[in-house]
Amino acid sequence: MRIIIDAFGGDNAPVEIIKGAAMALNEFPDIEVTLTGDQERINQELELYPDVKGRIEVVHAPEVISMDEPPVNAVKRKRNSSLVVGLMLLKEGKGDAFITCGSTGATLSGALLRVGRIKGILRPALAPMLPNDNKGVMLIDCGANMDCKSANLVQFAMMGNIYMKKVIGLDNPRIALANVGTEDEKGNELTHEVFPILKQDKSLNFVGNMEGRDVFTAADVIVADGFAGNLLLKSVEGTAGYMTTVMKQEFLSSLRCKIGALLLKPGLKRLKKRMDYTEYGGAPLLGIDGVVLKGHGSSNAKALCSTVRQAVRIINGNVVQTIKDALSETSAE
Amino acid sequence: MRIIIDAFGGDNAPVEIIKGAAMALNEFPDIEVTLTGDQERINQELELYPDVKGRIEVVHAPEVISMDEPPVNAVKRKRNSSLVVGLMLLKEGKGDAFITCGSTGATLSGALLRVGRIKGILRPALAPMLPNDNKGVMLIDCGANMDCKSANLVQFAMMGNIYMKKVIGLDNPRIALANVGTEDEKGNELTHEVFPILKQDKSLNFVGNMEGRDVFTAADVIVADGFAGNLLLKSVEGTAGYMTTVMKQEFLSSLRCKIGALLLKPGLKRLKKRMDYTEYGGAPLLGIDGVVLKGHGSSNAKALCSTVRQAVRIINGNVVQTIKDALSETSAE
Repeated sequence: MRIIIDAFGGDNAPVEIIKGAAMALNEFPDIEVTLTGDQERINQELELYPDVKGRIEVVHAPEVISMDEPPVNAVKRKRNSSLVVGLMLLKEGKGDAFITCGSTGATLSGALLRVGRIKGILRPALAPMLPNDNKGVMLIDCGANMDCKSANLVQFAMMGNIYMKKVIGLDNPRIALANVGTEDEKGNELTHEVFPILKQDKSLNFVGNMEGRDVFTAADVIVADGFAGNLLLKSVEGTAGYMTTVMKQEFLSSLRCKIGALLLKPGLKRLKKRMDYTEYGGAPLLGIDGVVLKGHGSSNAKALCSTVRQAVRIINGNVVQTIKDALSETSAE
Repeated sequence: MRIIIDAFGGDNAPVEIIKGAAMALNEFPDIEVTLTGDQERINQELELYPDVKGRIEVVHAPEVISMDEPPVNAVKRKRNSSLVVGLMLLKEGKGDAFITCGSTGATLSGALLRVGRIKGILRPALAPMLPNDNKGVMLIDCGANMDCKSANLVQFAMMGNIYMKKVIGLDNPRIALANVGTEDEKGNELTHEVFPILKQDKSLNFVGNMEGRDVFTAADVIVADGFAGNLLLKSVEGTAGYMTTVMKQEFLSSLRCKIGALLLKPGLKRLKKRMDYTEYGGAPLLGIDGVVLKGHGSSNAKALCSTVRQAVRIINGNVVQTIKDALSETSAE
C-alpha cells in the first residue's frame, strides 16, 4: 500500500508534513509513502528520518499552489505543483491514496479535473468528522457543493453510510438531515424534497431531521448541502475556539483561578483532546474515483499521521469500490 | 409605557414569567405590565408580589398554544390563547410591546396574522443576539424565512443596522453576510446575488462575507437566510452546551480536578455569564408593525426581565418608526 502525500500543502509544510509521514511509516510497517514537492528541500528534511527514509519515494514538483489562488486556474496552470503532481500519480495508479493539507478549493478542483468522479456520482462531497461521545460524526457535504439538488443529498447520505460502516465500523449508522427543527415538515424547499426520499430508502437508517444544537448527539452522519454544512462545521469550530479563549482569560484572572487551573490541567487536557477533530484525521472527498483526503490547513505532524491512518482504513475498507457497487445496484433496480 | 406579556408561554410559565415581570417592574418604575393567560392562576401568583401588583393588569385568556401544535392552525383556532390575546392587545394599541416565550412558529404566524408587517417589508425576521466581547452580535434571520430572495436579505441588513444603532447604541455597526469563506466571490446563488447589493448600499457599513468560525468577532450584524441562520445559531448553542457537559465530566473525574474546579468556581461562573445569551434578552421580530419579542423557551425570571429591558430599549429607540422611515426613503429615491 502506497500513500501519496503533498509535502508542500498546509501552513506547516514541509516540516510537519514530512515528520508526520515518518510517524505514519513507523506506525504502519507495511505502507510506503510518496512525497511530492521540491526534491532538494524534501531530501534535506528526510535526513532527520534515516530509519524510514528507504520507504519514501520523492517525486519532484517545483511549484506550490497557495491558499489564496483561484482554485480552478491554479490547478490548470500549475501542472508541476505538489498538489497536481500528487493527484496525477493517484490517477495513474502509482499510489492508493492521496493526502494534502493545502487549499480546499484547489484540492476539490484538482481531484475533479485530474482524478475524476466515480461514474454515476453527480457531485463529490467533502466530509469531515466532528468529535462526539461515540466514534465521531460525519458532516457531508461541508463546502464542496453550493446550491445542491435533492439527488445530491441522497448520494451524500449513501456515501456517508458506506464510510461509517466500512471505515468507522458502525453496523447501522444513524443518518440525519440538517434542518431547522426535528419535525418532519420543517425546512426549506430542498429538505422538503429530500426528506421523503431518504425516509423511503431502505438501505439507510434515516433518523429524520436534526437541529444544529444536536450536532454532537443526534446522528453518525449529518447530510447537508455544502453551504449549510460549511456554516455548521465552522460555527462549531468558532464556538469551541471562542469558549477556549474566554476560558483562558477567566482562568488566568486571579491567583485563586490560576491555582485551580493548574490542578485542573489533566482535565483540561482531556477536554482539549475530546474536542480535537484532528484526532479523526482529515476530510475524505467522497465520490472521487480514488482515495483523496484533505487534511486541515493547520495540520501538524500528529494530525498528518492521523490522516494517513484514516487513508489506510479507507483503502482497507474498500470504500470507493463499495460506492461503485451501491450505484450499480441502484441503477439495476 | 406598557409591556404586554404572555404569562403562559415557555417551559417555566407561568411562575417564572410572572416573577420576571415583577422583577422588571421593580427595575423600571415608569412601566406597566399586562399579563395574558388564565386570570385565576395569574392572580394567585400575583399574591407573591404585593408591591408591584397595582401596576399589573390581567387580561383573561383561558387557552394555551403548546410548543408542538402546528403554528398557523393554532393561531387561527385558539383566539382565546394567551399568545393571540396578547398580540391582539398590541394591535389595538393597548400596549407598546408584546413578549412571549412560547412557540416560535406560533409567535411568527400570530404576529404576521394579528399584527401584520410594516408596509414595504417583504418578510419579517427573527433576530436573536449572540454574546461576543463587545455588545453582542445580531443574527438576522434565524428561522422565520426559509428560501430567501436577495431582497429579503437586503431588508434584514437594513433592519439589523437600525436595531444595533438605535437599541444597542453602536455608531456604525459592521454588517456581514454569512458565507462559506471571506472572499468576495465565495458562496451560493443567493449570496452571489446579494453581495454586490450590500456592497453598494451606502447606508450600510458592509464588511463583506464571514465564515461560521468568525461568528464572535467578524461583525455586529450577521445577515443570513433563515435556514442557514438557524443552523448557525443552534450549532453555537449545541457546541457551547456540549463543551460544558464534557468540561463537567472531566472536572469531576478525580479529586485533584474537583479541588481545581472548586478554586476555579468564580472563573467558571464568569465564563458561563459571558456565554449566556439570555443576558441579551429575547429575539425581536423585526419587520412586524409593532414591537414583538420572542424570549427563549427555557427563560427563567431573569431572562424574562432582560427581555422586558430589551423591549423598553426598542420602544425608546423608536425602532419600528425608524424602519418605516428608512423604507420610505428608499422608495422615494
